[in-house]
Amino acid sequence: KRRLFEVIFQSHTPSAKLFDIILFMLILASIIILMLETIPALGSKYYLPFKMVDFFFMIIFTIEYILRIICVKSPRKYIFSFYGMVDLLAILPSYLEFIFPQSHLLMLVRSFRLLRIFRIFNMVKFLDESRMLLFAIIRSFRKIVIFLFFVVLLAIFLGSVMYVIEYEHNPGFTSIPQSIYWSIVTITTVGYGDVAPMTALGKIFASFIMILGYAIIAVPTGILSSDLSRRYARKKISIRCDECLYEDNPD
Amino acid sequence: KRRLFEVIFQSHTPSAKLFDIILFMLILASIIILMLETIPALGSKYYLPFKMVDFFFMIIFTIEYILRIICVKSPRKYIFSFYGMVDLLAILPSYLEFIFPQSHLLMLVRSFRLLRIFRIFNMVKFLDESRMLLFAIIRSFRKIVIFLFFVVLLAIFLGSVMYVIEYEHNPGFTSIPQSIYWSIVTITTVGYGDVAPMTALGKIFASFIMILGYAIIAVPTGILSSDLSRRYARKKISIRCDECLYEDNPD
Amino acid sequence: KRRLFEVIFQSHTPSAKLFDIILFMLILASIIILMLETIPALGSKYYLPFKMVDFFFMIIFTIEYILRIICVKSPRKYIFSFYGMVDLLAILPSYLEFIFPQSHLLMLVRSFRLLRIFRIFNMVKFLDESRMLLFAIIRSFRKIVIFLFFVVLLAIFLGSVMYVIEYEHNPGFTSIPQSIYWSIVTITTVGYGDVAPMTALGKIFASFIMILGYAIIAVPTGILSSDLSRRYARKKISIRCDECLYEDNPD
Amino acid sequence: KRRLFEVIFQSHTPSAKLFDIILFMLILASIIILMLETIPALGSKYYLPFKMVDFFFMIIFTIEYILRIICVKSPRKYIFSFYGMVDLLAILPSYLEFIFPQSHLLMLVRSFRLLRIFRIFNMVKFLDESRMLLFAIIRSFRKIVIFLFFVVLLAIFLGSVMYVIEYEHNPGFTSIPQSIYWSIVTITTVGYGDVAPMTALGKIFASFIMILGYAIIAVPTGILSSDLSRRYARKKISIRCDECLYEDNPD
Repeated sequence: KRRLFEVIFQSHTPSAKLFDIILFMLILASIIILMLETIPALGSKYYLPFKMVDFFFMIIFTIEYILRIICVKSPRKYIFSFYGMVDLLAILPSYLEFIFPQSHLLMLVRSFRLLRIFRIFNMVKFLDESRMLLFAIIRSFRKIVIFLFFVVLLAIFLGSVMYVIEYEHNPGFTSIPQSIYWSIVTITTVGYGDVAPMTALGKIFASFIMILGYAIIAVPTGILSSDLSRRYARKKISIRCDECLYEDNPD
Repeated sequence: KRRLFEVIFQSHTPSAKLFDIILFMLILASIIILMLETIPALGSKYYLPFKMVDFFFMIIFTIEYILRIICVKSPRKYIFSFYGMVDLLAILPSYLEFIFPQSHLLMLVRSFRLLRIFRIFNMVKFLDESRMLLFAIIRSFRKIVIFLFFVVLLAIFLGSVMYVIEYEHNPGFTSIPQSIYWSIVTITTVGYGDVAPMTALGKIFASFIMILGYAIIAVPTGILSSDLSRRYARKKISIRCDECLYEDNPD
Repeated sequence: KRRLFEVIFQSHTPSAKLFDIILFMLILASIIILMLETIPALGSKYYLPFKMVDFFFMIIFTIEYILRIICVKSPRKYIFSFYGMVDLLAILPSYLEFIFPQSHLLMLVRSFRLLRIFRIFNMVKFLDESRMLLFAIIRSFRKIVIFLFFVVLLAIFLGSVMYVIEYEHNPGFTSIPQSIYWSIVTITTVGYGDVAPMTALGKIFASFIMILGYAIIAVPTGILSSDLSRRYARKKISIRCDECLYEDNPD
Repeated sequence: KRRLFEVIFQSHTPSAKLFDIILFMLILASIIILMLETIPALGSKYYLPFKMVDFFFMIIFTIEYILRIICVKSPRKYIFSFYGMVDLLAILPSYLEFIFPQSHLLMLVRSFRLLRIFRIFNMVKFLDESRMLLFAIIRSFRKIVIFLFFVVLLAIFLGSVMYVIEYEHNPGFTSIPQSIYWSIVTITTVGYGDVAPMTALGKIFASFIMILGYAIIAVPTGILSSDLSRRYARKKISIRCDECLYEDNPD
């Protein structure tokens, strides 16, 4: 049982690494299959093979889930942990599909299986580089969230103004929420073009919003750049100051 | 009266914080209601409930406005301050709507109520992170404005050239201002696609503009990154140089 | 004559500053008029007023040009300088228009008047911030140009591959140059949508190009950020090292 | 034979430089011709001249290839090297075209000639600035790849969610892979607009994805900026620390 725990939950021993890689492949394969099933041309042509592969993955991931519950010290803690819930929610839909094959909410239920993608997130997050990256992002997180909050407020304000300018002349600006959607599309420089200004004043105002979006994209980049630079700079100091007798290694 | 002033205008005491949070919620709710009203499907179906909620917010914000005038030392100064004007302009439309319900300029007048969004700006600007961010942006402000001025000049120039290239072959390039609008859409990498080059020469020139826009987006980012880094670096120096006897804290 | 030179060519005395501001306003006004003339609705309605204003600007700028030639030491040098050519080319079209009002190349000739925009560039480039900015951009110029050269090579390569993938199934990919235009639109994240991939393989490849463009936008920004930071860092060193006796100011 | 080797493979002597420049021009010309041939209007009109120019380049590059094999020490090593393969694959299609002029796979085969573009990459990579740039990119490469991997995972997840939201109401979201394509178009801020959300919930979710994409574009930029800054900073240290007796030049 202890060996099983090491193999499934840890990744230090060779057999544990092998288990991780095989599991990663299986999850990836099951996600790809799930996606291909939704393509109408493929979904109807290869209905039976897809069902069989689904069944195969259902068995595999059920066994894995049961093994995890068996070998863990506190099964309850695992079941109600985030990844425990993900594991369960990713298996359940397959069973529901077998029991209620004609369910109305079938697609919604099936989409839960895509939660498996979180397990890939979980696996790759242990890579060294991604940890450093995540660390830097988390440090800048609050600042970036506040910045984004300002962007959203700005988008609401500019979208509302644009609505007043355009709504009588442009069938695309049907309401303020629609207008805010447009202003977010514009300020983030995505620019679908499904809604675009038509009046002269609207185009002038839209140009202003675009230039604004072009300028403020510098803010999150500036925050992250200086935060990352600061981390390196701190390391640099600790190297240089070794003649100053005390190691300077805060945080 | 003094207690009232503390609760409404400051945010140190628990009751003042509670007041701020409730007001924030009310403003947010009133803005969301205003937006939903403009959706045609909702606006006609729930006409009466919307009117009642509008009336409710009108009463609430009128009381708040009167309380602010009462408890402030110099009511005149408050009324003619920026936020005093915002408060007033955000209430007035509701009354105008009651008096002239069939007004032609109704939508324009109603949109003034959206000015309340400035009050949310005012509230969140006291958060620590946003103050730091604003400080950095303000420091880089002049440089970024001058950069944007160059971008606009460039857009005017490139748009005019594009007009000469495209106007005979492309129904989208109807005039130079329209062509400048297109060049701003392109240089900021928004790219709606409502106007796009059609001639071979136009496409080559547009490609050049895109690559230019792709390169010069680096400028505002570079300015802000180095300004933010500089601020941190300065702090670093003042820490390190404490053995050099004098604190180095310019500007 | 000397006073005239000071007023027109320099900007230290109050009268010279006044002259600069008036000239700036006149150029700006003439450019705006030129643009408005091209709007079909306005151009035909106010044909006569526009002609009169054009005539007025023609007289004004001709006088200015003659004054410049008179007061400068070497008229020849001024005439063949860049801004001398710009001044001349911006006046000539007005005369050509009077002589050949029905010219075929009228629009091309008229567009030369927009060269006046260069004079605005010339005026604002003396601002302190813009000089610093230009300095930083010029320093990074070679690196950025080489980067852009790589981007163009990449766009040519990716566009050619995309042509092979899409040309049989998509009416938008008519030729390799058209396909390269598309890949530049995509890699710079402009994304008009006038040409978009249609085959499954094309969409996968396009996704790859987008993610590539999303990643390499970091390169010019990184170059400029580090160059700007370096400049500040250098200043920092020269301040700190004043105890090391020698000023450190390389390059 | 040795002189030939110097001229063809190296670039120190004047004749070698001349050879490089002429070859660069010829490759560039042949690529431009290849592209122009695909434009339907030109391709049919100037069929014969294009064929003749193709034939000319075929002869030239065949001679060059033979000369390279002759003068190199180990012809086998050259033939199976990356650039040896590129050279061969860029000539072969011309011969295949002569032998099977009506081939079905003609376009695919001809496109191989575009591999010549790699040779231009090879030539310019020796420029000093591009080497420095490449060095910085390579250093940040692993981090950026991991970042992009996260972006792709995120796009898969968000695209799948969007599919569940939109697929019943929007003819553009036909399958999950199509939906992922849309989410990549959105997250990278390209925004073609060929697929756009239509439901209210879809627009809200799309706004969230756009703002996310707008924020995380900061990550690769931040990584590269700080890496480039670090390199310069390190040089700075090694200069400053020459009084500390030992040169600090790690990695």
